[in-house]
Amino acid sequence: MSDQKLKIIPLGGLGEFGMNCMAIRYGDDIIVVDAGMMFPDDELLGVDIVTPDFTYLEENAAHVRGLILTHGHEDHIGGVPFLLNQISVPVYGTPFTLALVERRLEEHEMLDEVKLHKVKPGDRLELGPFSIEFIHVTHSIVSCVALAITTPLGVIIHTGDFKVDPTPTDNLLFDLHTLAEYGKRGVLLLLSDSTNVDRPGYTESERAVGPRLEDLFVRSPRRLIISCFSSSIHRLQQIVDFAQQYGRKVAFFGRSMSNTTEIAHDLGLLTIPDGVLLRPQDAMQLPPNKVAAVVSGTQGEPMSALSRVAVDNHKHLSIERGDTVALSARIIPGNEKAIYRMINHISRRGADVVYGTMNPPIHVSGHGSAEELRLVLNLVRPKYFVPVHGEYRQLSRHAKLAQHLSHSGLEDTFILECGDTLEIDRDGARRGESVTVGRVCIDSGTLDEVVEDIVIRDRRSLSEDGFVLPIIAINKHTGRWEGLPEIVSRGFMSEDSTGVLKEARQIVLKTLESSTPEERGDWGVMQEKIRTDLKRFLNKQTSRRPLIMPVILEV
Amino acid sequence: MSDQKLKIIPLGGLGEFGMNCMAIRYGDDIIVVDAGMMFPDDELLGVDIVTPDFTYLEENAAHVRGLILTHGHEDHIGGVPFLLNQISVPVYGTPFTLALVERRLEEHEMLDEVKLHKVKPGDRLELGPFSIEFIHVTHSIVSCVALAITTPLGVIIHTGDFKVDPTPTDNLLFDLHTLAEYGKRGVLLLLSDSTNVDRPGYTESERAVGPRLEDLFVRSPRRLIISCFSSSIHRLQQIVDFAQQYGRKVAFFGRSMSNTTEIAHDLGLLTIPDGVLLRPQDAMQLPPNKVAAVVSGTQGEPMSALSRVAVDNHKHLSIERGDTVALSARIIPGNEKAIYRMINHISRRGADVVYGTMNPPIHVSGHGSAEELRLVLNLVRPKYFVPVHGEYRQLSRHAKLAQHLSHSGLEDTFILECGDTLEIDRDGARRGESVTVGRVCIDSGTLDEVVEDIVIRDRRSLSEDGFVLPIIAINKHTGRWEGLPEIVSRGFMSEDSTGVLKEARQIVLKTLESSTPEERGDWGVMQEKIRTDLKRFLNKQTSRRPLIMPVILEV
Repeated sequence: MSDQKLKIIPLGGLGEFGMNCMAIRYGDDIIVVDAGMMFPDDELLGVDIVTPDFTYLEENAAHVRGLILTHGHEDHIGGVPFLLNQISVPVYGTPFTLALVERRLEEHEMLDEVKLHKVKPGDRLELGPFSIEFIHVTHSIVSCVALAITTPLGVIIHTGDFKVDPTPTDNLLFDLHTLAEYGKRGVLLLLSDSTNVDRPGYTESERAVGPRLEDLFVRSPRRLIISCFSSSIHRLQQIVDFAQQYGRKVAFFGRSMSNTTEIAHDLGLLTIPDGVLLRPQDAMQLPPNKVAAVVSGTQGEPMSALSRVAVDNHKHLSIERGDTVALSARIIPGNEKAIYRMINHISRRGADVVYGTMNPPIHVSGHGSAEELRLVLNLVRPKYFVPVHGEYRQLSRHAKLAQHLSHSGLEDTFILECGDTLEIDRDGARRGESVTVGRVCIDSGTLDEVVEDIVIRDRRSLSEDGFVLPIIAINKHTGRWEGLPEIVSRGFMSEDSTGVLKEARQIVLKTLESSTPEERGDWGVMQEKIRTDLKRFLNKQTSRRPLIMPVILEV
Repeated sequence: MSDQKLKIIPLGGLGEFGMNCMAIRYGDDIIVVDAGMMFPDDELLGVDIVTPDFTYLEENAAHVRGLILTHGHEDHIGGVPFLLNQISVPVYGTPFTLALVERRLEEHEMLDEVKLHKVKPGDRLELGPFSIEFIHVTHSIVSCVALAITTPLGVIIHTGDFKVDPTPTDNLLFDLHTLAEYGKRGVLLLLSDSTNVDRPGYTESERAVGPRLEDLFVRSPRRLIISCFSSSIHRLQQIVDFAQQYGRKVAFFGRSMSNTTEIAHDLGLLTIPDGVLLRPQDAMQLPPNKVAAVVSGTQGEPMSALSRVAVDNHKHLSIERGDTVALSARIIPGNEKAIYRMINHISRRGADVVYGTMNPPIHVSGHGSAEELRLVLNLVRPKYFVPVHGEYRQLSRHAKLAQHLSHSGLEDTFILECGDTLEIDRDGARRGESVTVGRVCIDSGTLDEVVEDIVIRDRRSLSEDGFVLPIIAINKHTGRWEGLPEIVSRGFMSEDSTGVLKEARQIVLKTLESSTPEERGDWGVMQEKIRTDLKRFLNKQTSRRPLIMPVILEV
């Protein structure tokens, strides 16, 4: 049976940040690990969500045995509805991960069509030639698993996202033993999280945030407002516990915060003692020093609860002089300005804002630093290694970090980006043929509205220099233009442009008049001539390159 | 004489990051401290440079006695040509600062019209009722001064930008003594740099970078490429010194890098031993381990030398496998994605990239941390305090940092944002009337091309949902429209929009037909009616809000 090839096919998240998705193929059988989304770069104007291009899976839909989710972060599950809209496939994950997926499927009215299968650490799942064992790992969200995927050619370990938290707040330790056993028996390939490879040493335990949170509860003279990622259930549990200890009631603000706390509470992953929970609408009724408000929106997203509170535009929560606002989250690169703007607003309201680097920390990362990555490399001792979950700079550094294992059985390391593939057979491992990958830009969170590249290109051009539209009216009887061409323009220049546009009309007229009768017979040609002449003129006069679009109107 | 009022009038840099500019007025006499620029937020589409609105100075042009520059960073001198284009005023600064200003004036062909006056630490300058002493301070650029401005009502200390570097590489210590003397005699008002108020402790000395740089020179097996801010003359001196010590030649890349090193060298502020300098075009000719390339472009600016090198698009410098590339600069918030993209490219070329947080550091800040700010507060012991140079979050934290001085003579602290003013007279200090301030957006670095707000608003709208132009041809004889209205659209929707746009033509026609003869007589009214109906229709059909601009064409 092992005369077939094993293929590793990253469809997202390798060589880029976000939207993790990987296909693993043996012979004709395929399993998919995670289907994430990412938030778009600023350059992708008007785009709300980006998912991987799932063409490869669609073309091989008949062979896809299952979608396996490692944990419930957006960059691992956010693309699930979009993938399931294209192919029908059973989905496997821990109860908490699947509960989050359910919410998204509900939003897209797809819940009835999809089969969700709960798994737990220690379970084994057989899918075609693959036998998958789920291994508990620690991370910033609860219920995370790594995967040990046994194939006819050997075992693949996929870590998912992890840190090696020595003292997790829920006391569920990273299952190093199972990883060690696989390592001892021999692992063909390791796929391991590269996010924090740049950081030396160890990432601090989630518990390290405790002293800072406690300090906030002890010292805040008035209302305490804490913002964190709604999926940080460990963090929320610590907040709830300190609230009980120090006699404050907790109210949750923001849709994602209400959703995830409700789910986590239902599944017994978040314990809220009786009498601690406060309804959002009651938050301003209690004495300020009896309230802790937990608010989503750490990244300064304009419509988030915290952004609205910051500009005093929230129905149930206001910041008053002397309140304390703590941002218990990292700044995702690209969000700095929005976040600082929000902090400025909060400061103007007279609140004390606690954010950034401090000791004890107000936030710790969920991803392992260099020494944790080395620990996993050393436990697993794979024959082949492919760093995953990171931009190229991180993947290449992770590859270097594994070099010492060449003395302990590591035969080769491959830096793959999306679309690259790795082929393994009895003779060894090598790069295989590329597959179709890409980004699908989604305009407003519905399944249908995919913004095509041309539209994005136009929007970018429009955003820089606006547009100039020469409009030429053609008499449909004579075929000749009537009068002087009109020019319509927006976003191009300020009012001083009148002179330039007046001259531009003459330029268009000259182009019309200097054309041969043959040219004039073909309005496609004329449009191109007008565009070219006008482009040259405007660029020379103004150094700008507006979108130019000649319009021919038969009248 | 002291029955006049002293006014502090921040025109830029307070409550925002960049473009520092402050007017100080006594009676009718005004001096201006710094005239900076800032780079625009991403939202200011198509804008290259932002300067303060100098209207206040223009309106009081006859009273402005001088422009005093504290140092040569862009956020302090970048607006000088634009200010001098509006008012004529002598300029004072250290030779290095003025040399940088000269280059900018040359670019704008203004050098002949401007009077530049060199000053040095210890000098005193009399301007109307103001007597200004220049005080040497340490910062990331050379030749920086703080100002002690004696007025009839008392002394104002303006720190400019500073850190209190205990071991500056040029051995020119921060002049704490002069500051202490002023403090002892009594200071009316302190204006002090708030940039790093968030950081506890002390900022490391510029010398702290030495061990890291030396390590790079010792360990890099091949070509060593270092990128830093071109104005970081201290940093460049360290690089040149290590290059000599370890037998490498130094080549400078990038226009700003050539400019500033030439100026600093001419002024004796950068010592380049014989035989160390290498022409850029020879950088690839020497053995790789004999070359250190110093390249501008730490922020991933698309046209910078380093960005071009990263994609192998530079005439004289290529990155080869095994080269070392070090980014010796901070990441300015907002530039993260561009910088990481550049680092990914460099990593793909097989270079080892050294960046980020490490010990010893590859970069240290030029701004003092909390304890340095406290030191200056305690030395100066002002009666009034106004934190400057920072967003609101930083100003408010700096104000809190000064609270302990209320036991040592501090009577009041004012958080001013641009446009707010402070009035001081014999009776005390209080907030005064606001003045006109704002941002002037400049499109391409020339003096004339100011982008007006309406244009920016249009461009933003265009960038999100494109435009839809209904075009209605009107028979100028009958006053009636001819045929079905045309609709032209770009950046709005993908090809599937044909149906929507077809329907939209009918909507426009319906609006036309349902109008009263009076309405039809006023095409302004008709344009508005068409816009409103079409907006409602498109928003309902597509949830989008393109720019809609009905065009009426008489034919």
